[in-house]
Amino acid sequence: MIVQRLIERKRDGQTLDAPELRELVLAYSEGRVPDYQMAALLMAVYFRGLDQSEMNALMSAMLDSGKKLDLSHLTVPRIDKHSTGGVGDKVSLVLAPLISALGVAVPMMSGRGLGHTGGTLDKLESIPGFRTALTLDEAERQVEKIGCAMLGQTREIVPADRKMYALRDATATVEVIPLIAASIMSKKIAESLTGLVLDIKSGSGSFLPELDDQLKLARAMIGLGADHGCPVVALVTAMDRPLGFACGNALEVVEAIRVLEGRGPPDLLEVTLALGAEMLVLAGVAATSGEARSAMLGAISSGKALEKMEQIVGAQGGDKRVIRDQTRLPQATDQAQFEAKRDGIVQSVEPRAVGYGVIALGGGRKNMEDIIDPSVGFVITAKPGERVTKGQTLATIYARSRDDLEVGRSALEQAIAIGDSAGAILPLVSHRVTVRGVETLEQ
Amino acid sequence: MIVQRLIERKRDGQTLDAPELRELVLAYSEGRVPDYQMAALLMAVYFRGLDQSEMNALMSAMLDSGKKLDLSHLTVPRIDKHSTGGVGDKVSLVLAPLISALGVAVPMMSGRGLGHTGGTLDKLESIPGFRTALTLDEAERQVEKIGCAMLGQTREIVPADRKMYALRDATATVEVIPLIAASIMSKKIAESLTGLVLDIKSGSGSFLPELDDQLKLARAMIGLGADHGCPVVALVTAMDRPLGFACGNALEVVEAIRVLEGRGPPDLLEVTLALGAEMLVLAGVAATSGEARSAMLGAISSGKALEKMEQIVGAQGGDKRVIRDQTRLPQATDQAQFEAKRDGIVQSVEPRAVGYGVIALGGGRKNMEDIIDPSVGFVITAKPGERVTKGQTLATIYARSRDDLEVGRSALEQAIAIGDSAGAILPLVSHRVTVRGVETLEQ
Repeated sequence: MIVQRLIERKRDGQTLDAPELRELVLAYSEGRVPDYQMAALLMAVYFRGLDQSEMNALMSAMLDSGKKLDLSHLTVPRIDKHSTGGVGDKVSLVLAPLISALGVAVPMMSGRGLGHTGGTLDKLESIPGFRTALTLDEAERQVEKIGCAMLGQTREIVPADRKMYALRDATATVEVIPLIAASIMSKKIAESLTGLVLDIKSGSGSFLPELDDQLKLARAMIGLGADHGCPVVALVTAMDRPLGFACGNALEVVEAIRVLEGRGPPDLLEVTLALGAEMLVLAGVAATSGEARSAMLGAISSGKALEKMEQIVGAQGGDKRVIRDQTRLPQATDQAQFEAKRDGIVQSVEPRAVGYGVIALGGGRKNMEDIIDPSVGFVITAKPGERVTKGQTLATIYARSRDDLEVGRSALEQAIAIGDSAGAILPLVSHRVTVRGVETLEQ
Repeated sequence: MIVQRLIERKRDGQTLDAPELRELVLAYSEGRVPDYQMAALLMAVYFRGLDQSEMNALMSAMLDSGKKLDLSHLTVPRIDKHSTGGVGDKVSLVLAPLISALGVAVPMMSGRGLGHTGGTLDKLESIPGFRTALTLDEAERQVEKIGCAMLGQTREIVPADRKMYALRDATATVEVIPLIAASIMSKKIAESLTGLVLDIKSGSGSFLPELDDQLKLARAMIGLGADHGCPVVALVTAMDRPLGFACGNALEVVEAIRVLEGRGPPDLLEVTLALGAEMLVLAGVAATSGEARSAMLGAISSGKALEKMEQIVGAQGGDKRVIRDQTRLPQATDQAQFEAKRDGIVQSVEPRAVGYGVIALGGGRKNMEDIIDPSVGFVITAKPGERVTKGQTLATIYARSRDDLEVGRSALEQAIAIGDSAGAILPLVSHRVTVRGVETLEQ
């Protein structure tokens, strides 16, 4: 393998053969191909793309660069959900206990906050004692025992992806659909899933605002899953406004608990049920979406889902009492109401401005080494399309100082627009993509 | 400076500001920006290009990463010629003494063989004792004293270019016109020239076979020169066949001496005079091309040019007696005639096949560390368009073993095509590009 020739061929728009791409990725993972050659190749891929066979070879090699969660001996279906990332998106915190309470194993490997979006690991770690750094062994035993584990990507799993992701981050080659698809799917296949549901965010707060790109990503991941015995179903969901009310780590844990108690915000519940229904149908424990929804609502009203949450928190060293008493979560020292400055209709709540506001309050990272304050953030109850009157509370700001309250206020001023008429908003769930094609969903 | 952001902007087709590009190049040269980020940027430049202001900033920074030949105290004009590289192209060996014999300083920094093309340094080093690794000091003193020095790129000159070129070679980003232009011009401006003549090869044996690309390179370099007080004139010359007869290091030195003796091959003489005339007019020592040609032919017939060659060889430690007695050059142990297999017309002599043939004989490098045998190569007297008869000698092969004669023979069989009619050939000098525009030259 002459790496220059591979780079040159990709640069010129040719297709690389599976064996050479595999050899390249494994050699890179083992340090036998230097970062600079991989960086040039990745930038060529940015411009030229990868076809399904190339993506497949890339993903298989990444997968084989490390170990997998060994769950293939389990007889229960194993289903996970992955989101491309949003603001206020605490769906994973709800779905993991809810779906595993219904007899489906959920081995959930998640990430940290990235850009303006939050991360499931950061949210979980706002629960005192909660340990996300499980070993593969620990995760395997926990899934066997209670049907669910919520962990971070370990060093043992797809090290090639880990190394390549760090390189992409440093070389402006993150936003490349085939690389995103292979990266996500390598980790998901490493969870030894029998099915995966993908939540592709659309709208101004998403990483892929164009429908074309969203569908491209969905199709790429569906193709990769199909080649590895892991059926994938993707839903395109709205991220032109935050999901639910709470944005900020501990605040989102509280809201996830609210959903499991049967009193969460309606938009968050709806997206959760839509994704959860796909999980249950993929798992074969529900025949139809309707049946799946009934099962989930049943697990919520019976308290089973909340109990499962308690079990997961306990198993991972977290303070279980948090589930019944949320004052045990980190509390912000300062709070303030954010009020409407005029009568009118909420036109938009911009997720990016909100997400960067959470970071400005100390609830997210500007640099990888930053330490997060889990207590801070916003609870924004105003939703686009809502009529409001001057002085009405639109949101609550949670901060760690009075000065920071002003930081939060100015972020919300940027984020929330009130006008005379309602702006257009995206349907909560707009498209469903399966191996059979794309359905546009009725609203 | 956040390097990722610069890469991202170039990736997205934006223009980088001169100060940030400068900072990047200097930081890279000093090892404060890693190879992998530069590799990603270079690949983005492959796809997005650089505009004149970006090229200028890149070149200036490369220039300022090291030292320059300090010749600005000289009152004589300082002119160099640069070729994009060809097969049998020994024009530099003729022009350096010829033009400096006419009172113009020629500080000539050259390179080694690259791909299928030969390099001036390799050719000069076939002269026993000839030292091309001059220090800047030595080169300065030699130019002051005899008006000419022929040296390799030293470690002190444009180290950023040196480092970047090695990276480009490893990352398939060599063939990028703005990078080529900035790389060449940084070295030329470092020679503190008052003018530069550029020989852009066209045809199947050139690195840029498309006229569009040739003109793009010419315009880029003219623009860069204009910004640094160094007027540039470019000629597009034929490289659809080797230039002159000899291809191989010592063989080309012999042929260069033949031209200085007034008995070189006509095509080589014509290209030499065309380029030399531009040099002399740029220098202001001739008012017209005709006047310049007369002056050059005078310096040849008077023996002054050959004397200058002798002087240069002597100054750089070479065996001066070579000029009068070429048997002192390395001699190939084995020779054979290559004859026409049929009656007909020579349709083509492919420079790439000839160039790779010289390498196969040991006269060029497959790897950077290979040692060259200066004695081997070809003297191909047959030219495209020439009528030949079966058994007629078309070329002589010079090799270091009888086995290698077969290697040479098979290269020439690939290179030389004889047919029933003449193929199309390129005009020797087809275009002239100056700051005023492109002239198509009449043939």
